[in-house]
Amino acid sequence: MRSESMVRDLGLAPEGHKKIDWAARHSLVLNTVRDRYLKDGSLEGLGVGVALPIEAKTAYFTVVLAEAGAEVAVASPSPLFVQDDVAAALAERGVTVYASSQNPPEKSDRELERVLDRTLDGRSAVLIDDRAGLVRLVHTTRRNLLGGVLGASEETTSGVAKYEAMDSEGTLEIPCIAANDARCKYLFDNRYGTGQSTLTAIMQNTNLLVGGKRIVVLGYGWCGKGIARYAAGLGARVTVCEVDPVRGLEAYADGFDVLPALEAARIGEVFITATGSRNVLAGPHFERMQDGTILTNAGAVDIEIDTVDLATVAAKVTDVRRNVEEFAMPDGRRLYLVGRGMVVNLAAGDGHPVEIMDLTFAIQALCTHHLANNHGRLDTAVHLLPKEIDDEVARIKLEALGMGVDVLTPKQEEFLRSWRD
Amino acid sequence: MRSESMVRDLGLAPEGHKKIDWAARHSLVLNTVRDRYLKDGSLEGLGVGVALPIEAKTAYFTVVLAEAGAEVAVASPSPLFVQDDVAAALAERGVTVYASSQNPPEKSDRELERVLDRTLDGRSAVLIDDRAGLVRLVHTTRRNLLGGVLGASEETTSGVAKYEAMDSEGTLEIPCIAANDARCKYLFDNRYGTGQSTLTAIMQNTNLLVGGKRIVVLGYGWCGKGIARYAAGLGARVTVCEVDPVRGLEAYADGFDVLPALEAARIGEVFITATGSRNVLAGPHFERMQDGTILTNAGAVDIEIDTVDLATVAAKVTDVRRNVEEFAMPDGRRLYLVGRGMVVNLAAGDGHPVEIMDLTFAIQALCTHHLANNHGRLDTAVHLLPKEIDDEVARIKLEALGMGVDVLTPKQEEFLRSWRD
Amino acid sequence: MRSESMVRDLGLAPEGHKKIDWAARHSLVLNTVRDRYLKDGSLEGLGVGVALPIEAKTAYFTVVLAEAGAEVAVASPSPLFVQDDVAAALAERGVTVYASSQNPPEKSDRELERVLDRTLDGRSAVLIDDRAGLVRLVHTTRRNLLGGVLGASEETTSGVAKYEAMDSEGTLEIPCIAANDARCKYLFDNRYGTGQSTLTAIMQNTNLLVGGKRIVVLGYGWCGKGIARYAAGLGARVTVCEVDPVRGLEAYADGFDVLPALEAARIGEVFITATGSRNVLAGPHFERMQDGTILTNAGAVDIEIDTVDLATVAAKVTDVRRNVEEFAMPDGRRLYLVGRGMVVNLAAGDGHPVEIMDLTFAIQALCTHHLANNHGRLDTAVHLLPKEIDDEVARIKLEALGMGVDVLTPKQEEFLRSWRD
Amino acid sequence: MRSESMVRDLGLAPEGHKKIDWAARHSLVLNTVRDRYLKDGSLEGLGVGVALPIEAKTAYFTVVLAEAGAEVAVASPSPLFVQDDVAAALAERGVTVYASSQNPPEKSDRELERVLDRTLDGRSAVLIDDRAGLVRLVHTTRRNLLGGVLGASEETTSGVAKYEAMDSEGTLEIPCIAANDARCKYLFDNRYGTGQSTLTAIMQNTNLLVGGKRIVVLGYGWCGKGIARYAAGLGARVTVCEVDPVRGLEAYADGFDVLPALEAARIGEVFITATGSRNVLAGPHFERMQDGTILTNAGAVDIEIDTVDLATVAAKVTDVRRNVEEFAMPDGRRLYLVGRGMVVNLAAGDGHPVEIMDLTFAIQALCTHHLANNHGRLDTAVHLLPKEIDDEVARIKLEALGMGVDVLTPKQEEFLRSWRD
Repeated sequence: MRSESMVRDLGLAPEGHKKIDWAARHSLVLNTVRDRYLKDGSLEGLGVGVALPIEAKTAYFTVVLAEAGAEVAVASPSPLFVQDDVAAALAERGVTVYASSQNPPEKSDRELERVLDRTLDGRSAVLIDDRAGLVRLVHTTRRNLLGGVLGASEETTSGVAKYEAMDSEGTLEIPCIAANDARCKYLFDNRYGTGQSTLTAIMQNTNLLVGGKRIVVLGYGWCGKGIARYAAGLGARVTVCEVDPVRGLEAYADGFDVLPALEAARIGEVFITATGSRNVLAGPHFERMQDGTILTNAGAVDIEIDTVDLATVAAKVTDVRRNVEEFAMPDGRRLYLVGRGMVVNLAAGDGHPVEIMDLTFAIQALCTHHLANNHGRLDTAVHLLPKEIDDEVARIKLEALGMGVDVLTPKQEEFLRSWRD
Repeated sequence: MRSESMVRDLGLAPEGHKKIDWAARHSLVLNTVRDRYLKDGSLEGLGVGVALPIEAKTAYFTVVLAEAGAEVAVASPSPLFVQDDVAAALAERGVTVYASSQNPPEKSDRELERVLDRTLDGRSAVLIDDRAGLVRLVHTTRRNLLGGVLGASEETTSGVAKYEAMDSEGTLEIPCIAANDARCKYLFDNRYGTGQSTLTAIMQNTNLLVGGKRIVVLGYGWCGKGIARYAAGLGARVTVCEVDPVRGLEAYADGFDVLPALEAARIGEVFITATGSRNVLAGPHFERMQDGTILTNAGAVDIEIDTVDLATVAAKVTDVRRNVEEFAMPDGRRLYLVGRGMVVNLAAGDGHPVEIMDLTFAIQALCTHHLANNHGRLDTAVHLLPKEIDDEVARIKLEALGMGVDVLTPKQEEFLRSWRD
Repeated sequence: MRSESMVRDLGLAPEGHKKIDWAARHSLVLNTVRDRYLKDGSLEGLGVGVALPIEAKTAYFTVVLAEAGAEVAVASPSPLFVQDDVAAALAERGVTVYASSQNPPEKSDRELERVLDRTLDGRSAVLIDDRAGLVRLVHTTRRNLLGGVLGASEETTSGVAKYEAMDSEGTLEIPCIAANDARCKYLFDNRYGTGQSTLTAIMQNTNLLVGGKRIVVLGYGWCGKGIARYAAGLGARVTVCEVDPVRGLEAYADGFDVLPALEAARIGEVFITATGSRNVLAGPHFERMQDGTILTNAGAVDIEIDTVDLATVAAKVTDVRRNVEEFAMPDGRRLYLVGRGMVVNLAAGDGHPVEIMDLTFAIQALCTHHLANNHGRLDTAVHLLPKEIDDEVARIKLEALGMGVDVLTPKQEEFLRSWRD
Repeated sequence: MRSESMVRDLGLAPEGHKKIDWAARHSLVLNTVRDRYLKDGSLEGLGVGVALPIEAKTAYFTVVLAEAGAEVAVASPSPLFVQDDVAAALAERGVTVYASSQNPPEKSDRELERVLDRTLDGRSAVLIDDRAGLVRLVHTTRRNLLGGVLGASEETTSGVAKYEAMDSEGTLEIPCIAANDARCKYLFDNRYGTGQSTLTAIMQNTNLLVGGKRIVVLGYGWCGKGIARYAAGLGARVTVCEVDPVRGLEAYADGFDVLPALEAARIGEVFITATGSRNVLAGPHFERMQDGTILTNAGAVDIEIDTVDLATVAAKVTDVRRNVEEFAMPDGRRLYLVGRGMVVNLAAGDGHPVEIMDLTFAIQALCTHHLANNHGRLDTAVHLLPKEIDDEVARIKLEALGMGVDVLTPKQEEFLRSWRD
């Protein structure tokens, strides 16, 4: 099986194994899910096609699936999110990998198609999707494989939006689970995972101070909320840009300035996009920005910052630090782009903290398990993971922490149910 | 009309007018809603029965409705929530008031019935409800008036739960709006309104330091989240008790200890309940508590703290400060109850901050307006306020603040709608 | 003895006793200091003249001194800081009180002189001073009593500055202790005591929301730091004004805007002065302020806000709420002054939290004890309380909390002392 | 000149130049100091011996000195703090460098001696010291060079302690400036610089989540305060260990648990030492720690964590991640040491943020300038930088930020000076 993998250099595997072991060591929830649920044979012989960044935590997740008997193949939505040592180690652990940091970005779809070809070759499969890449392909260039797909589970807010667009358009042909919308996922991964890892990536790549810095967060969804909160926790002065007025008002009550992006463009020192939309920072914003402005994207959409526009208006582009490019404007101002405008915690860092991905992949493992066992009972629509499964993941984590919750007494349950005083 | 009111002392009105004027001055959103929406005649001659605490902000809200032409009558769910000077001023401003701080608590239903009798006397009415009191009565002791009710709008999380209990039981006979569940309501009122005013009430009534104090927050819903956050913002060490494991995990990620209530009972110095449930602090907890423990309730349910139990086990009960009772236990420990176990920001304070209630009552005014104009189109079910109305309230507030949000470009809208790359 | 007291109404004593008992109950450190140090007879027959606000905590402090055998007389630097019920209760507990909330402010010195007359009448005395009032008088109008003064201890930053001005001028004739400069005092009282109680006073008197509010803190000393921090902890957007550039830079790194006061005047919604200087908000600031601006003083100096100027430029002054005056400007803008420009936590609240004053008065009790026993060995200069005494107070508090610190090992001590690797 | 340098590989220079340019670009204060003060010729021909980590910011500082005409030589107190690319670039910019990451740690003194030999060879020199390394050597193995030393300036709290130990012992023979004790240094560098960079180093090297983590901070001086604050700002639950009871009490009032280190050892998940003392974590602590505990040192003293002891008790030591070693205990528990117990932000990161070091090196540049011009007027003692210089640095920074402070009016100055009302 291993021979199928297409990675940069198998010789890098030893370092990759170390990283995966570290992730495994801190994946208490996923390990409990494995022991409690995945050993029942449900995944035996099942194909699992995975589109995810290739780094230690995602790798460990696929290893767990493979060890539960699944035939797993994995590719990355972008070569920028591939750690070659991890890819190599993964190939050695029985997972088929189509990923190299050296692949041309425009061929990413090709690798995702390979994942589909491999896992749906003569067997049924569940798709673990990122930004709807696999589901899109299996509804277009790989329609021939659609029949074998038991269902898909999606990791990101923007991917779920795509599923829902397909659903309301009437195009969706498989049952899908919005793994992203499990509370154990978005409340932690999107908010605190993105929050911590985005700021860490910015700090380690720029070596700049956060305290006092005027940081503009575009988008005040779960990701934006996490980023703004931690930025403030590190002493930044935060400005929020939003399109939803209620979220804008929330940002205000949280102590932040709320401004249209074109106004914020004039005062920000660091910009972080987390909107799930496109071109939220573009020409008119670049025009207004101060010399020295730092630009980063923390969202799953690669074109939140219009880097094409940025390169076009720049007189000169220079690499000035690892992962930092300088765009010198004709008027002398210099703008700095971190991580090429791709989601910065992956493009210029190690991604989310391990414990966060542990929760997320516990959810994804249970989504896989749920689809394997219930696909026949699910409509071709976008579903939430059942609440009991979500709760169970939280309960496992709290137990591992030595913490605990209460149980309602019968009297309390009755009180909450009744309305007649 | 005024002569109908039953208040403690009309002579107190001057002080009440001052308070109402202060609220009016800071009600920028409600004032805009009044000017923009309520002048269209929709409320002309309409009955509006209101169950709400009688203090400056609620008073101003009813004045706005009355000035828009409605026949408004108001009573309080508890005499502890009645400020007699405000009640008197209200009576002078054309609102019928049945409320006195001296009324016996057990007769509160009698006053709510008077509100129903008055506003449904020969006319149709909308009900602005608190903890489902009016809706309960109009479905039981005042069924005869049910036919005139166009709909009801509910202020609290626990009241909405009652409506939903009725709905799922098949008992609900009028269309209801869960005003509480408007984002402009719960995200601000429940969270920051309760958070700030609960802590203010505790600080001003006990004169104790928050910094370093071990504060136990029971319930990590919107109210609990606000309380915990501000308590931490003032330097407290916070422990959270929950029945929902995901919320428990959220509290952990927010930096708080998460413990079953019986364990927390041993270590807490101040306890604040915000569960919407009953008897969350009762005998077994009181037994374990340390000498000097402070007990307060921030939730809409009066029996979150089992004060009957507390009084029973106490050897002696003494008033030791305004709004603070000491319960001396037989073993010598002393527990202190603030505000008699009733929601502390109202029972021992001025309620939520004005700007918070401004948002809430802008929502409630628009609920009234919506029910007046759309009751025929609404099922007998629990409805959300339409998103546009919710958004409009936020937009008005942001404008008043000189802040603003962006609008999606057509390209962005298309991007968010489409799934084919 | 009691007959000497001049209070408003002895009939108010019962309520005052309750308040003092509450303070006593939470004064764990002072109680330990009393048991451990004050019972040695050092204070027996000693006069102790006290200038302090008359409220529960100060009252309890003077009771402790009186119970240790001292002849204590007390007056307030301002009638606005006198709680008449506490004054009455104090008179009943063997402390001579010259204080009534009804006294004309311009006669405050007269009451302080009575304190000097009483406590230095045929005996030696220690002075517990506030804003240098007693020390000033004993060097001017009561020079005849100077010989009996063993020393003085001062409570406030501004008072210490006065002592130091006297000292460097060569005018000081008694040994003084800068109680304010004990770490157990200023790190807690000035910072967290002022911080919490100032914000509580503003919140309870205005019923306004802190979250999102643009709050301008003038002065970033210990008091300003505490206010800014808690305001931010409650969600405010904080701007700091300073005259010291390093403190200004600190405020910036803490995440606050730093602006000259005249610029801040245009954007602030709430102003809080904590400078120890005079006229930091005056005509030119009032001119620029927005309609609705709230003005408060949290500093020991009564003229930080130039209220004379404010009244002069106002077209009309109205009481709009308890402790809140409206100053209507000729151009229609209205400014609101809380607590008449006097230190707001005392003029419109219960002062610092009990546990804070417990530390402060433990320090003051030990200052008194130290002066009683060491006055002969102290120069006529401004002294710090010996570090051991300061440490002891902290140690007592930590013990009471069940917390603890480590002790350096001999090896560590040697390491810290030596420089030869 | 360049040929004197001893670096690892001059071929690495291009990457080093980029890093130095980035630092230069963000060194607004140092650049202003250079333009305003260093161009007066004071440093022309002066020797400046520098002991500092070799990374971009320190490098840029030495370049500025060299460009001002000084003969600069630099070495690092440890090979772990040497970035070879920066060392190479520095050598190309006219600074003599004795530093390579490959040098044996035990020979670090040898390189410092080279610095002394070089800069004091036939000329007078100022020493910019780190942990008192240069001053120690010039008082011991290089006493022959002592005569040429105009003075020294020290960067760290622990180094200043050494100077003071020498001074009180009577051993100090040159005037020293405690650069560390300039307010523009320790309030920012020690607190926020150490705070941010320590947490960044831990996050980037372990990829673990901070939110909810039980982090034990040993030492609550300026460094510990900054670490604790940012850790809490990122959602950690913080426990503080101290030897000073007042600092312990401060930590408590700041909302942290305060425990003796042996008790904290049982509950912590991450330990960060910042004491300036030795062996604060040693055998007895390691014995009590939980499996998985992370150990890091943020202090200037390399032996805060007793790594010798740790290695001795471990059954096995393994590299498990870049900069992370696993110490497997005989009982199966595993402890993880980040950055070998050396100050983690340098040993496993890029050191302090640029803007922080900009302040620090502006101070150091002015110390050098001050010593060059005033050495004759300074005693052989430990001096503070004059307050005006400290203030000037803050003023330059605030100006660069577009912020500003007020100036006292003559009336205010008089008020602050006078004590007679």
